[in-house]
Amino acid sequence: MSGRVVTRVERAEPQVIDGLAEAGVATVHEAQGRTGLLAGRLRPIFPGARIAGSAVTISAPPGDNWMVHVAIEQLRDGDTLVLAPTSPCEDGYFGDLLATSALARGCRGLVIDAGVRDVRDLTRMGFPVWSKAVFAQGTVKATLGSVNVPVVCAGELVHPGDVIVADDDGVCVVPRADAAAVLEKARAREVNEEAKRARLAAGELGLDIYDMRGKLEAMGLRYE
Amino acid sequence: MSGRVVTRVERAEPQVIDGLAEAGVATVHEAQGRTGLLAGRLRPIFPGARIAGSAVTISAPPGDNWMVHVAIEQLRDGDTLVLAPTSPCEDGYFGDLLATSALARGCRGLVIDAGVRDVRDLTRMGFPVWSKAVFAQGTVKATLGSVNVPVVCAGELVHPGDVIVADDDGVCVVPRADAAAVLEKARAREVNEEAKRARLAAGELGLDIYDMRGKLEAMGLRYE
Amino acid sequence: MSGRVVTRVERAEPQVIDGLAEAGVATVHEAQGRTGLLAGRLRPIFPGARIAGSAVTISAPPGDNWMVHVAIEQLRDGDTLVLAPTSPCEDGYFGDLLATSALARGCRGLVIDAGVRDVRDLTRMGFPVWSKAVFAQGTVKATLGSVNVPVVCAGELVHPGDVIVADDDGVCVVPRADAAAVLEKARAREVNEEAKRARLAAGELGLDIYDMRGKLEAMGLRYE
Amino acid sequence: MSGRVVTRVERAEPQVIDGLAEAGVATVHEAQGRTGLLAGRLRPIFPGARIAGSAVTISAPPGDNWMVHVAIEQLRDGDTLVLAPTSPCEDGYFGDLLATSALARGCRGLVIDAGVRDVRDLTRMGFPVWSKAVFAQGTVKATLGSVNVPVVCAGELVHPGDVIVADDDGVCVVPRADAAAVLEKARAREVNEEAKRARLAAGELGLDIYDMRGKLEAMGLRYE
Amino acid sequence: MSGRVVTRVERAEPQVIDGLAEAGVATVHEAQGRTGLLAGRLRPIFPGARIAGSAVTISAPPGDNWMVHVAIEQLRDGDTLVLAPTSPCEDGYFGDLLATSALARGCRGLVIDAGVRDVRDLTRMGFPVWSKAVFAQGTVKATLGSVNVPVVCAGELVHPGDVIVADDDGVCVVPRADAAAVLEKARAREVNEEAKRARLAAGELGLDIYDMRGKLEAMGLRYE
Amino acid sequence: MSGRVVTRVERAEPQVIDGLAEAGVATVHEAQGRTGLLAGRLRPIFPGARIAGSAVTISAPPGDNWMVHVAIEQLRDGDTLVLAPTSPCEDGYFGDLLATSALARGCRGLVIDAGVRDVRDLTRMGFPVWSKAVFAQGTVKATLGSVNVPVVCAGELVHPGDVIVADDDGVCVVPRADAAAVLEKARAREVNEEAKRARLAAGELGLDIYDMRGKLEAMGLRYE
Repeated sequence: MSGRVVTRVERAEPQVIDGLAEAGVATVHEAQGRTGLLAGRLRPIFPGARIAGSAVTISAPPGDNWMVHVAIEQLRDGDTLVLAPTSPCEDGYFGDLLATSALARGCRGLVIDAGVRDVRDLTRMGFPVWSKAVFAQGTVKATLGSVNVPVVCAGELVHPGDVIVADDDGVCVVPRADAAAVLEKARAREVNEEAKRARLAAGELGLDIYDMRGKLEAMGLRYE
Repeated sequence: MSGRVVTRVERAEPQVIDGLAEAGVATVHEAQGRTGLLAGRLRPIFPGARIAGSAVTISAPPGDNWMVHVAIEQLRDGDTLVLAPTSPCEDGYFGDLLATSALARGCRGLVIDAGVRDVRDLTRMGFPVWSKAVFAQGTVKATLGSVNVPVVCAGELVHPGDVIVADDDGVCVVPRADAAAVLEKARAREVNEEAKRARLAAGELGLDIYDMRGKLEAMGLRYE
Repeated sequence: MSGRVVTRVERAEPQVIDGLAEAGVATVHEAQGRTGLLAGRLRPIFPGARIAGSAVTISAPPGDNWMVHVAIEQLRDGDTLVLAPTSPCEDGYFGDLLATSALARGCRGLVIDAGVRDVRDLTRMGFPVWSKAVFAQGTVKATLGSVNVPVVCAGELVHPGDVIVADDDGVCVVPRADAAAVLEKARAREVNEEAKRARLAAGELGLDIYDMRGKLEAMGLRYE
Repeated sequence: MSGRVVTRVERAEPQVIDGLAEAGVATVHEAQGRTGLLAGRLRPIFPGARIAGSAVTISAPPGDNWMVHVAIEQLRDGDTLVLAPTSPCEDGYFGDLLATSALARGCRGLVIDAGVRDVRDLTRMGFPVWSKAVFAQGTVKATLGSVNVPVVCAGELVHPGDVIVADDDGVCVVPRADAAAVLEKARAREVNEEAKRARLAAGELGLDIYDMRGKLEAMGLRYE
Repeated sequence: MSGRVVTRVERAEPQVIDGLAEAGVATVHEAQGRTGLLAGRLRPIFPGARIAGSAVTISAPPGDNWMVHVAIEQLRDGDTLVLAPTSPCEDGYFGDLLATSALARGCRGLVIDAGVRDVRDLTRMGFPVWSKAVFAQGTVKATLGSVNVPVVCAGELVHPGDVIVADDDGVCVVPRADAAAVLEKARAREVNEEAKRARLAAGELGLDIYDMRGKLEAMGLRYE
Repeated sequence: MSGRVVTRVERAEPQVIDGLAEAGVATVHEAQGRTGLLAGRLRPIFPGARIAGSAVTISAPPGDNWMVHVAIEQLRDGDTLVLAPTSPCEDGYFGDLLATSALARGCRGLVIDAGVRDVRDLTRMGFPVWSKAVFAQGTVKATLGSVNVPVVCAGELVHPGDVIVADDDGVCVVPRADAAAVLEKARAREVNEEAKRARLAAGELGLDIYDMRGKLEAMGLRYE
């Protein structure tokens, strides 16, 4: 079933995508009902990046980065690469040359359930990566995978064109069709949180703001 | 046995607590006989923080952060939150709203054998956290735990009111009753180390300063 | 077989060593046929360091750092300490006092398949360490190991005098006798990559630069 | 999005399901193009079981097994329970009482990316489980999940009604619509392997049977 | 603080201990409010053992089994050894000679958050061990630890004389003073479960037996 | 540097190899100075096997088992296959067809720092494997590795022709040239242990047999 490249992929609206980036991973994850979070083993190679982009997906054999070259041709401005190996692997599929090429195509970053290398150069270039490992191990170009097929990356299903949101908290995927609705909920959540934040900063307690005392007592909480 | 909140907790003297922060984790751990170190999986979310505070402990069910709200009410100026889940969990129990609330109560930081989120905001606020994971996964508020009961956090027993010392090396707990004595030993150790440091910097060898050559030879060390 | 200190160790030429540092881990690893990479669990304690040095090796019992003192006497200007425990261990074998001593002997850094502590001080001193863990756990001085014997460190065989290259990507070992030849290949590789980088930055695709389209089609890649 | 129970699920033909059980995980995985394998962390609680069944899926909060009771009502003869927690968890969601209930409904086994307990009783009952952990930790019944929705379990997408194949090698999922075709390929593969097995047992080499020598030589393999 | 051997340890009543063994880990853990479970990384070296015994505790340095010899002298008939290393370690602290010695003192088994070896012999002798690892790595006898002091073993506090219950599900500790009460609750639980088991085996659903339907509906569960 | 097959390999004497099998891993490891032990992650796929054999080594790319076919041709009666992937991998490199072929060549077993599959068949055939994982993931035949070159397998250096000893405790490598001497020491150790075992079984304490009391007291051990 490998060896496929899907060239026509629908994306979400650019302003929706950018809005999701502003909201950030934790808020977006909550706004879509606590779903969509990729496994916590994916960590940023440098702190402070916050992106959203349309997924160009890669299913790649372990230790073989051939399909990354194929995927880069499919990138459009504002996209994010998402690579899932077909079996667990920590090899360094991606480094500064591929990042140079991806950047030239308008790519916003890479999410990879495997390894990455040249992280010093990538940091200097400001090309953000969320990866399972930093590992310099080289890869081969010998076996086909697929590009722009649905993949399970770090435990979460990602379709090409889904919106990937990533920041210091990790990575979240938003199904393309839900993106606008999720953004709306995320913004409502932010407004609500802003009000709460002010009260909490002033010393009010969550116990009172969220009216928890009665329920806690009913559940049997005892103060000693 | 859950569902308890102990409201009266004895703390160590503030100047003792602050002294332990200055000494740092490695020195304090040595000064109390190489005990008290929490497991190395607890890592700071940003480098450079160095705190000590009285433990307000939380025993929480996996994926349920209700007790954090209860614990925040128990915080006094200079305290540190210590959360141990009742079974292994990486969910994000704590984020920027709870940090805002804890800061308003004078909290110095959080030690948690689970996950944390909103780390970009926490970093901006300067609210230090030592956690097992950064993970945006949301939690529920459905089941009771306890506050200010003894907990085993990351392999170490912590009583409420014990002194928590944390820095880039990790986290150490000092029993409240021992805190003053441990501080004294830590300071003696620092004075001793300062002298050694100068000699080592000048090129003298540990083999000579610590008079190890004879013992090594007696044990059978051979130079070839 | 423990209890040995080999005092006469051949090193590679200083300018070869320094050239390998400039090339960096990923390039050196590729230049020697994708070999020599230590396991990815070895991570730098602070970002940005890039060193190469001759290995002074330490085989040490778990939780016992006695041999580090012995090894420091064997250091020459430009060397790197490489410590492999005889069984898996995360204890903090090395801290600021040992770093002070090693620096005074011209040591460029430490590679250790175990733990390190005082990382705040080490960072301030600019003493780079690649370790499996940051852990303050103290060690004893009770059992002999060996210095400057061949060790397997993080899955890779290291002979005393081999060149250790380390940067943000991890750690690579180059056999002393191969160092000059590997450097030459690394430089050729860099020249080649520089040309590729410019073309990729200009928007050319790897698919075309590396002439992959025909081979991919022959393997059966289908565009849909 | 949780709180859903889908009651109408299509299953594959019983004889197809049973045929896939006979073929076993490794053969089925190969027959469908090396796809469908759940992560290797799922291991059987006792050796020797080999089953196939239609998936009744459970998406459950960490440490909460309420939905297992809901799922058991949805079981039909020949089904297999598949539980994916919404965040990583090792708690013991399932023990001998639930197994008794599931067996009474014709359930063939459980695949769970979390923990299981009462394994001595389950072994005695012959109720097979493939789990991430054996752990006695009890769970609560406080929060909703869903039953018979698509889940990602141990890294693989499972739809309700898909065929789950499990044996000592692990667990594989076959999409319901592909089951008959995969079985056909699996059988062809077995026939082909049987012939190979006889030749290999007689001492013929794979190098000759698969005609590899020329290709290896062309790739540059050197005998020394 | 190491170097202590406490010789006077109170034990629970033998018939209480034996009753807890019969109840087994999962039931005992539930009966004492879902507490006391050691981490799931402790696994039996052979299936089928089910023991309970009074804890003789050992705090041992990493890779040093000297204190095991000291502890064996403290064993009384019906005791269980509990070893916690002072830092994470997988070395083989215990093998067939120590098991022979422990058996001669009436020891029922070993719980160790580290490694064990000679597992073939231990299996033949019927000496059960719950360990973190099977690893033949030898240990030294160079540094003191302590015997019969409180230890945290695999995340749980164990006092000397506490009752250790262990079976295929793992290991649970019951504080000595609570042992009789916990046994009573465990037996009540078993009686209750026996009745449930019969009904479930007859095809009744947990949804009905535990009267869950109303609460699930109230929480918002929807059948589609 | 890959793509090499060394066809001439020296082996140890058959009776020495068989003697080492009888001694077993723990004894052999001790007899050669506590060296040679492969990492504890290598576990047998079924209990009770105890073998020794001459290593035929394989260095293989991740997810590529081509070299296993090449290695099988190099097997002689009494050999053991040792496979080290060039980067971490859990794929199932080896199954029942390869085992059939290896058995036909007189192979005694497989040691692999990766995955294996068809374990039910391998168990039935009595073909022992020590592996890092059981995982059905298929592999490709696309890239060269090497056969009978020195490899680091699970952290230990193995030369072709070295003696591999494996049993329920794990795997140990004995350099070919040392094999006879190690066997002699192993036998002396067994004789010595036999005498100790009888005394320990009779209730004598290790504290007395090994004359430890004085040394423990001198180190400061206190009985309370």
